Amino acid sequence: MSAKPPFAHVAIIGLGLIGSSIARAVRDAMPDVKLSGFDADATARATARNLGLADAIADSAADAVVEADLVIFCVPVGAMGKAAADLRSGLKAEALISDVGSSKANVLAELQAALPDHAIIPAHPVAGTERSGPEAGFATLFQNRWCILTPPEGAQSDHVDRLTRFWQMLGANVDLMDPQHHDLVLAVTSHLPHLIAYTIVGTASDLESVTRSEVIKYSAGGFRDFTRIAASDPTMWRDVFLSNKDAVLEMLQRFSEDLTALQRAIRWGDGDALFDLFTRTRAIRRSIIEEGQDDARPDFGRSPS
Amino acid sequence: MSAKPPFAHVAIIGLGLIGSSIARAVRDAMPDVKLSGFDADATARATARNLGLADAIADSAADAVVEADLVIFCVPVGAMGKAAADLRSGLKAEALISDVGSSKANVLAELQAALPDHAIIPAHPVAGTERSGPEAGFATLFQNRWCILTPPEGAQSDHVDRLTRFWQMLGANVDLMDPQHHDLVLAVTSHLPHLIAYTIVGTASDLESVTRSEVIKYSAGGFRDFTRIAASDPTMWRDVFLSNKDAVLEMLQRFSEDLTALQRAIRWGDGDALFDLFTRTRAIRRSIIEEGQDDARPDFGRSPS
Repeated sequence: MSAKPPFAHVAIIGLGLIGSSIARAVRDAMPDVKLSGFDADATARATARNLGLADAIADSAADAVVEADLVIFCVPVGAMGKAAADLRSGLKAEALISDVGSSKANVLAELQAALPDHAIIPAHPVAGTERSGPEAGFATLFQNRWCILTPPEGAQSDHVDRLTRFWQMLGANVDLMDPQHHDLVLAVTSHLPHLIAYTIVGTASDLESVTRSEVIKYSAGGFRDFTRIAASDPTMWRDVFLSNKDAVLEMLQRFSEDLTALQRAIRWGDGDALFDLFTRTRAIRRSIIEEGQDDARPDFGRSPS
Repeated sequence: MSAKPPFAHVAIIGLGLIGSSIARAVRDAMPDVKLSGFDADATARATARNLGLADAIADSAADAVVEADLVIFCVPVGAMGKAAADLRSGLKAEALISDVGSSKANVLAELQAALPDHAIIPAHPVAGTERSGPEAGFATLFQNRWCILTPPEGAQSDHVDRLTRFWQMLGANVDLMDPQHHDLVLAVTSHLPHLIAYTIVGTASDLESVTRSEVIKYSAGGFRDFTRIAASDPTMWRDVFLSNKDAVLEMLQRFSEDLTALQRAIRWGDGDALFDLFTRTRAIRRSIIEEGQDDARPDFGRSPS
């Protein structure tokens, strides 16, 4: 027995890692739901057709949404406003609008400006890999991951309930949050880590005293961990930092202060300060594993190469 | 057919992740070699005996080395000098001394001061996990990883050759390097990444606006990657930063400058600067995978939880 799907026809705008994973997960979890899709990139559309990701991949965004009860924007956050304006003419009046963007206050404002007459419930599934494109998606991406909905004031509870059910059927746990608070939380759990990873990979690439080949050879000492998220989609991440600027700058300032304090401890040989911090940080890892948010095996379960 | 082992009796001082992995790998690769071991911690000695890690686990360091041709110190780099002084009375005159420490100039100086009459070839296998203790080791830890030897001026080539062969038989690739250059290379590929990971996990733990439980729940957005290396052994890492202070401070300064430049790009909305960096950093990940230094599967091959 499977629950009745909360939407009869879902349109996915943007068929990259997240969009194509939603398509695959909908197929698995709600085989009767009609799926249509669109991507601004013709190659991505062709790939999506070859993969059979949806019942129909349209050649315009407006065509993709004509029958849809739920439209999900899976494009970089800086492209949401234009993507929404482009398909307005095709939308049913009662279609619910959502997205998967990594920042929420800004995206809500852009979607509301482009589609002032439609119900909009932004969403953010906190899941992903470093890969991009329609081929990178997989149906289990959202299993046991959190999806955060940020309904605006006055959102209909029926809309919130149906979108919650939709994400639960894809395997996610659903939380509701204020958009501003979402942006602060994700600034620390996602945006700052990406910014730091990009930075250190850049720093390591630009040294004169250590060659690029040495950096690569000896990366198993820790550096390689950072290169994974620093291989994420450049357009997506450029947009995230510009869209969530204030919260990112706030978290970055705190990080820089803490790093300066550690730098000082190293310079002055304050081993106790180092030891105290290094002991505290172990507990967080244990909690993340206990809550099923990471692989419990050492080294993420990497296979020895 | 297996090659003749370069040493007949190996003593391992310190039976944590690396020491116990060497013991296991020697057993697998050189079953005829006699193995003795010691750990300053009585519980670790008892565990090592229960695991059958060596032919004999001695109750003093001097007893552990009386028959040894090769003695490997696998203790935190700040404890090398004392560990060496403690066993001097037991050493054979012709025993070769080595170690596995993450910094090399400082360790060489400490070992030379404690054992002025012995041949010393420091070594650093660039391999590990976030786990600690005798139970955490495994025989394949060094497979296809690099082990860096830093022979001092005037080292006998026979000693270098035998130690090279030893690590190759454990599965490692061996490089020779000047100790100062080693310390600079590892400052960027290992020490700086650990310092940054410890810092961001500390920063995230100390926020008032975002709860610890939120940090844990939404860690799959990137943060969880940093918690793995920030769960590494606190004593080991305190010692590494104090021991390799100059190179770590130099790399940290460069990282901070680069981070400040990105901070400025975000504040002023310079999307092109962000996009350019984020595009460059993808190439390094590809090279690391091509050279077999990381798992090619997305998300390190983590299993969906």
